[in-house]
Amino acid sequence: MSSTSNEPLTMQETLHALTEYWTGRGCMTVQPMNTEVGAGTLNPATFLRVQGPEPWRTAYVEPSVRPDDSRYGQNPNRLQTHTQFQVILKPDPGNPQELYLESLKRIGIDIAAHDIRFVEDNWANPATGSWGLGWEVWLDGLEITQFTYFQQAGGITLDPVSVEITYGIERILMALQGVSNFKEIRYAPGITYGEVFGQAEYEMSRYYLDEADVAANRELFDTYAAEARRLLDARLPVPAYTYVLKCSHTFNVLDARGAISTTERAKAFSTMRNLSQQVAALWGARREEEGHPLGRVQPPASPELPADAVAAVPHLAEPAPLAFEVGVEEMPPHEVTQAAEAVRAALAEKLGGTRLAHGAIRVVASPRRIVALVDEIAPREEDHQQTTRGPKLAQAFDAEGRPTKAAEGFARGQGLEIGQLTRIAVGDTEHLAAVKHIAGRSAAEVLAAVLPEIVRELRSDKNMRWNAPGLSFTRPIRWILALLGEHVVPFTVSSLASGRTTRVHRNAEQPELQVAHAEGYVKLLASHGILADADARRRLVVSGADALAVWADGHVDTAAESALLDEITNLVEQPTPILGRFEEKYLDLPSQILTTVMRKHQRYLPVLDASDRLLPNFVAVANGRCDEDRVRAGNEAVLRARYEDAAFFWNADLKTPLLEMKAKLGLLTFERRLGSMADRAGRIAHLADRLAAAAGLGEADRRTVQRAGELAKFDLGSQMVTELSGLAGTMAREYALRAGETVEVADALIETEQPRSAGDALPASAAGAVLALADRFDLLAGLFAIGSAPTGSSDPYGLRRAALGVISILRARPELARITLGGGLAAAAELQPVSVPREALDEAHQFAVRRLEQALLEDGSHGGNTVEAVRAVLPLADAPARAEATLTELERLTGDAEFAQLAAALQRVRRIVPAGTEPLYDTALFEGPAEHALHNAFVELRSRLGEDRGLARFAAEGRYLVGPVNTFFDQVMVMAENPAVRANRLGLLAAIDGLAAQVLAWAELS
Amino acid sequence: MSSTSNEPLTMQETLHALTEYWTGRGCMTVQPMNTEVGAGTLNPATFLRVQGPEPWRTAYVEPSVRPDDSRYGQNPNRLQTHTQFQVILKPDPGNPQELYLESLKRIGIDIAAHDIRFVEDNWANPATGSWGLGWEVWLDGLEITQFTYFQQAGGITLDPVSVEITYGIERILMALQGVSNFKEIRYAPGITYGEVFGQAEYEMSRYYLDEADVAANRELFDTYAAEARRLLDARLPVPAYTYVLKCSHTFNVLDARGAISTTERAKAFSTMRNLSQQVAALWGARREEEGHPLGRVQPPASPELPADAVAAVPHLAEPAPLAFEVGVEEMPPHEVTQAAEAVRAALAEKLGGTRLAHGAIRVVASPRRIVALVDEIAPREEDHQQTTRGPKLAQAFDAEGRPTKAAEGFARGQGLEIGQLTRIAVGDTEHLAAVKHIAGRSAAEVLAAVLPEIVRELRSDKNMRWNAPGLSFTRPIRWILALLGEHVVPFTVSSLASGRTTRVHRNAEQPELQVAHAEGYVKLLASHGILADADARRRLVVSGADALAVWADGHVDTAAESALLDEITNLVEQPTPILGRFEEKYLDLPSQILTTVMRKHQRYLPVLDASDRLLPNFVAVANGRCDEDRVRAGNEAVLRARYEDAAFFWNADLKTPLLEMKAKLGLLTFERRLGSMADRAGRIAHLADRLAAAAGLGEADRRTVQRAGELAKFDLGSQMVTELSGLAGTMAREYALRAGETVEVADALIETEQPRSAGDALPASAAGAVLALADRFDLLAGLFAIGSAPTGSSDPYGLRRAALGVISILRARPELARITLGGGLAAAAELQPVSVPREALDEAHQFAVRRLEQALLEDGSHGGNTVEAVRAVLPLADAPARAEATLTELERLTGDAEFAQLAAALQRVRRIVPAGTEPLYDTALFEGPAEHALHNAFVELRSRLGEDRGLARFAAEGRYLVGPVNTFFDQVMVMAENPAVRANRLGLLAAIDGLAAQVLAWAELS
Repeated sequence: MSSTSNEPLTMQETLHALTEYWTGRGCMTVQPMNTEVGAGTLNPATFLRVQGPEPWRTAYVEPSVRPDDSRYGQNPNRLQTHTQFQVILKPDPGNPQELYLESLKRIGIDIAAHDIRFVEDNWANPATGSWGLGWEVWLDGLEITQFTYFQQAGGITLDPVSVEITYGIERILMALQGVSNFKEIRYAPGITYGEVFGQAEYEMSRYYLDEADVAANRELFDTYAAEARRLLDARLPVPAYTYVLKCSHTFNVLDARGAISTTERAKAFSTMRNLSQQVAALWGARREEEGHPLGRVQPPASPELPADAVAAVPHLAEPAPLAFEVGVEEMPPHEVTQAAEAVRAALAEKLGGTRLAHGAIRVVASPRRIVALVDEIAPREEDHQQTTRGPKLAQAFDAEGRPTKAAEGFARGQGLEIGQLTRIAVGDTEHLAAVKHIAGRSAAEVLAAVLPEIVRELRSDKNMRWNAPGLSFTRPIRWILALLGEHVVPFTVSSLASGRTTRVHRNAEQPELQVAHAEGYVKLLASHGILADADARRRLVVSGADALAVWADGHVDTAAESALLDEITNLVEQPTPILGRFEEKYLDLPSQILTTVMRKHQRYLPVLDASDRLLPNFVAVANGRCDEDRVRAGNEAVLRARYEDAAFFWNADLKTPLLEMKAKLGLLTFERRLGSMADRAGRIAHLADRLAAAAGLGEADRRTVQRAGELAKFDLGSQMVTELSGLAGTMAREYALRAGETVEVADALIETEQPRSAGDALPASAAGAVLALADRFDLLAGLFAIGSAPTGSSDPYGLRRAALGVISILRARPELARITLGGGLAAAAELQPVSVPREALDEAHQFAVRRLEQALLEDGSHGGNTVEAVRAVLPLADAPARAEATLTELERLTGDAEFAQLAAALQRVRRIVPAGTEPLYDTALFEGPAEHALHNAFVELRSRLGEDRGLARFAAEGRYLVGPVNTFFDQVMVMAENPAVRANRLGLLAAIDGLAAQVLAWAELS
Repeated sequence: MSSTSNEPLTMQETLHALTEYWTGRGCMTVQPMNTEVGAGTLNPATFLRVQGPEPWRTAYVEPSVRPDDSRYGQNPNRLQTHTQFQVILKPDPGNPQELYLESLKRIGIDIAAHDIRFVEDNWANPATGSWGLGWEVWLDGLEITQFTYFQQAGGITLDPVSVEITYGIERILMALQGVSNFKEIRYAPGITYGEVFGQAEYEMSRYYLDEADVAANRELFDTYAAEARRLLDARLPVPAYTYVLKCSHTFNVLDARGAISTTERAKAFSTMRNLSQQVAALWGARREEEGHPLGRVQPPASPELPADAVAAVPHLAEPAPLAFEVGVEEMPPHEVTQAAEAVRAALAEKLGGTRLAHGAIRVVASPRRIVALVDEIAPREEDHQQTTRGPKLAQAFDAEGRPTKAAEGFARGQGLEIGQLTRIAVGDTEHLAAVKHIAGRSAAEVLAAVLPEIVRELRSDKNMRWNAPGLSFTRPIRWILALLGEHVVPFTVSSLASGRTTRVHRNAEQPELQVAHAEGYVKLLASHGILADADARRRLVVSGADALAVWADGHVDTAAESALLDEITNLVEQPTPILGRFEEKYLDLPSQILTTVMRKHQRYLPVLDASDRLLPNFVAVANGRCDEDRVRAGNEAVLRARYEDAAFFWNADLKTPLLEMKAKLGLLTFERRLGSMADRAGRIAHLADRLAAAAGLGEADRRTVQRAGELAKFDLGSQMVTELSGLAGTMAREYALRAGETVEVADALIETEQPRSAGDALPASAAGAVLALADRFDLLAGLFAIGSAPTGSSDPYGLRRAALGVISILRARPELARITLGGGLAAAAELQPVSVPREALDEAHQFAVRRLEQALLEDGSHGGNTVEAVRAVLPLADAPARAEATLTELERLTGDAEFAQLAAALQRVRRIVPAGTEPLYDTALFEGPAEHALHNAFVELRSRLGEDRGLARFAAEGRYLVGPVNTFFDQVMVMAENPAVRANRLGLLAAIDGLAAQVLAWAELS
């Protein structure tokens, strides 16, 4: 454990040091805004100045007022006013992360000892139409900074992009000073934060939570908005903006007072967004008029490359390997995997388009790099003949055999003499042709053309811009390594040049590394601590975590934590698992709370005992070598703070009657047109009751559905779920049990939310299943009704998951067969506050059916399902359980000869019957015994089936049909000349086909 | 000229350096207030924290918003938002000036090269019920800092006192960087102030001056006030205070929009004062309840002095001189003179109360010291006998001659045996007595008792407290030197101990000086650059200024500048006159503007040419040695900025019609009960017209009075006078002339304000005189009516000056004799908006008469006037011109034998007539010729006098009365037995006395 004897800085020293550091890097300081703002980003020095082409660098302190975070000063981690230190770098200087890390050193953070990470966090402020991509920066698991590449502000796309760095000062100080309550922060020598701000914290909390006059603040909001509008008309963006800020603060006050209804919230947001966007646009226009007084940012120049750089690469004598690395600032975990695949595909395709021979392509990736390795690149492309067709021979020479103008032109165009041309046959026609010998390019030449294209075309799910013109990717690309054997493949792309330099861990003694040869590149990285290959990292995490858990006499359920492990794997380049502890007293909290906090917020692996009960331990995975004791202590402190928060919410919630929590749902907007969350909960209750009745649930279940319906989603009004939304349902169950509800009701409440994701548990009770169905039918019917069906990768309301949930539940619960997709959706549609068009409902239905189709195809237990079999049962999809049962039966019947005969017979029937044929016939028109026999068999089958349209029965009884059908077709001319006879025969077949179609789509089996 | 090659700091570096400096001295930084404030003092870190006993040290930046200073960014020196750097030291650390000067060094000010001065400036903020005493700090004539010992805040007396230091950052930066427009300040490397804030400066000016919605802001004010009140009821001073601040800013916005009427202003101020005071009181109470979390300031301990310190002073063999110096932080100029006199008087009185022989006492003083010098202090007091009277002898011994209990008690009380007592006679009675020999105390002993009392009892017109408990003076006393010959007279007072250390100029190589001997102390100071004697300083200033003026081919009118010279004399200890220049173009402005700025704002002496026309030069008087070129340049820059401002106002005013300026008077409160300045101007016009009519002014003069009346005081609505109130009247004349008014009207407008002070010019025209009288009658009648007569030294409305003005004008203008004091006051009373009680009017009249009495007594041209002569003419005071003429005549008649006889005769008459005797008699009741002769002489005299009651005529004609009067008294027994005869004779004498009394109060001449 390293340690310095230096006293940590006080808060004011820290602010001073940051100011000094950033002003030393060309930032200007400004004062905090002199009206209340919720964040430093709202200061005009950010919001206005990121607009337009003018350069800007600023660093300032911003006390950020969040009325909603008021806690009377009693919560050790939460304040109505916290302090942000805000930095804007416009344009992106190319190395903002490095600048940032250096600033941490300045305030006494030993960045070599700590685990500092850039964890995906994309920032958006809908109230101002602003967003950016970036990270939250973690210090030993503690979020200390928001780091964003600002892409849009006030609805305007920013060019150039600004880098925004927002330090959370109180958090940093608590960590640095090792205190667990903000009041204990040493603010200045001899005086604590609590001593300076404690009384204000209490009193302002009182104002925001209890005392603010709602009517007065409503009026203030309107007055401010009106003033802003007038000032926009007067073309004064600066004062207009101050009034937008005043609006925003007033809205926050009203919100903290719980005084904002759904309608008001929507209206207020629309007002504020609108005003902000107008302010931004007007500011831009005014600066334009002023001729951009601070100048214009020039994009960085493309690096100079000698004209003969590629030619100068020594020619290879033998095949050589290629190492191609795209160095990136920390990518989001899921992008790591996707990017590797994208580069692999692009490389394969592009190389495939050349004549360069090469060996295997392998692409690995970590958060900071995508490494492509290609074996045995040939020294050069093979030479080849290139034949170019010229004019037809007939037109190439005149009657005298002299070349025509066309021929001469062709030869000239090819740079040849007429005499050098040859002739080729194209079909029946001879043409003049030029045949050239094309020398293959050198490998370097090929790669120098291919590789920059790959960089230029690299895209992710969500892309951003930075200081490299023309590039667009999930995060900034900062370096490119391209080695062919021992030689650099020289090229430039945007402002980057390829080279032989890579970067390893930022704390390494030599963070930059010169690479001699492409051979063994991944191993070279490993020897410098970087595991470029995700598989290797995952193995290391899994086994490392498991080994550590032994010390706690426990284990990590690596199978269950698979998704989390995948994420962790792509959060680090140099995984360093660390075992931490928390106080046993927190085990009194429901374990879901504890594990949710661990997984979702901290990416810690829970440690279980032999009975799979939670132990007071966790495994955190740091990145790189660090002072493990210190990192452990930091992570433990973070977890302690979060558990303290959770305990606070838990205790507060336990004191709150369930219906009081539920009352808060009126304040939560679900969707503007679909009302509040309370409205939605009401619909769910109503619909569940109808579904329960329809499904014929028993008295006890019906009562459970009704009570759980009354309480539905009440926990969204709890403090715990407000904070940890992933615990919705889980907390409902816990709180309901403790409030004296029956176990059945409590279970139904959690089951309402099940399944949360593919693979999650399904509702265990019928009551829960009915509620869960109601929840999802409501969601589907409502959102399809307002035209919010998912598009592409966008599915903000999780409709795919909802539809899949319906399917899964109905598949799993044949006893609810009377609840069909169509019926459920129609019933849900009736309850919507908007009218639901027929087409919307059909669309929703189709959407659900497609989910079933996919599910059946992918379903592990039906691994052998053919597309045909699934399609065959799909007409039954309205009742997924039946569809599934049928599919199972179909599987069983596969290979059954009798069934095959039946299917074949029915196919014969089906093929001949035109669509739309009425299934009506008259035995009086029969002309022979085969017809009568078929009729009799059909009647007999129908009577044997009764109401049952299941495949099993049909397959069993249907065999009696096979003979008569085949005989019929052998003996009877269906397409008789007499139209009446023909129609009668088709009517008979149509009746048979109709009956069979109720069982299966036989056509699919052919 | 010294110079450093260092680049001056940028503004952000300056703020950083100040923060660093003060945090290094235990100050905490806080952020600016997150709602608009007009000054750093309003930040709760000052306003709330100066309350109560808790210690507090803070330093912070405060962007200070003054909507009224909005100038669209066009004025080079004035901004709607300027930057203050605010420091609070609680308690007073004892050396705040030194700490402050050190801070100036840190931001690159070479304090040895510059002229830095502490110039009296007392701060008060009526809107919050706050005030303090202190200075503005001058850097080469530029006000850069407000330095205040905070005495009261929110109506609460502060204990301990806080030191408040407020740096005006833009001014400091403009001076340091040598730029003449705030926009050119280098704000940060590579970026100017204008580039950062220019657009906001323009746009916020637009809002404050043109665009702010008046109705909306009025509503905001009310809403904020209501919210503040509610929060006070809820006992939440912190949020309540934020709403007080919002009120205040909103008021300022409305004010800048010109939307505040007199009534509204009064009401708003009352609201804000009331709320502020409640906030302060509540904050104090809440901190008390919290047990004062930051502790309590302990007053500094009294220094320890050995018990035998005084006894240990070696006894003198011979008389020795005393040097006694009270060292003070810069006293206001007028206090310097008063303090010297106060110390002299106290010393004389207190030494007089001892038996210590001493020589002459001389006291001199400078801004930083009061030095008392006493010659030849005897080594010790003379010894003497002390006799104490005991019981009467009769009660001292019983019949047996044994001492009674009373006698024994007395002896015991005196510490003597019965036998040691003696007897004394008191009147006729013998008493037992104790006679003791009292040895005189040593000089040191006497002085050690007397001197601390002088310090303790030292008071000024306006006193303050600082960190010395029990002391109260105009400014803090920081050291005491007390030397008797070569020995320290040892004593302590409050936290100070006497010693032999004095302090010379702060820039001296050795700012502290050890003094060996009292002898020659003033010379010793002089040898270290300090002229303790005001006379010496004045001589130096006068001759130095005169000498410098030669270089400009001009002179300084030292006679006319006497008051200014007195002030300058007491602003410096080490006068260093410096000749400066300004650009000739400014000479186009009226010279009064230029000289007013020089004298009033800068204390510069104007330089005149041979024809007494202003030259483009001035003499500034710096304190101490400095880099004269730099100080000159600084002072010139300040003057340039002020003249630039003045030119700006001048040009703006010239574009404004006179009546438009006048319309603004409605916004200026004169006095709550007496209405606005517009109301007062209306009354003056009305009254002047009546007085003109009464005085019988001609047609042309009447027209002049009417037109000037319409315009009266319009220039109070001009920008120039708003800024430089001393130019009221002067600007009226200038603007009126340029607006095409007649010379007569223009002159009358300036004359309305004359005389401005004792010795100032009187109105030159009758019209002007009438207006000036109307102005003053209105003032007197109104303010006496509302009970605001001057008390003690408090005369805020200048009523003494007003009354003296009336007297002077009426004395100077006998042609206005029909305007009397009584008549003018009565007419003015009729026009007041309040009813004027008879007693108030009498009081005002008496007040004016007393001023005449004083004037006549002091008047140089009547140097020989005796009290008697003045009193003799005082009954004529209602017509001051007549009183003065009479006095002149009386002077002429002094020594005239005939007149003496007349006076004696009239005295004989006056003495015998009882008060209230009716002047009626019947010649039929005469009993002898003497009676008839006297009657005839009286009738003859009356007829000769006609209407004339002037003394000259009366003296000439009265001689005929002398004989008959004397004969009458010789021959007639006035007090005859017959009551009718007696009454008749007294009636005759009363008639004569009555006639004489109309001329003079003869009784006073006896």
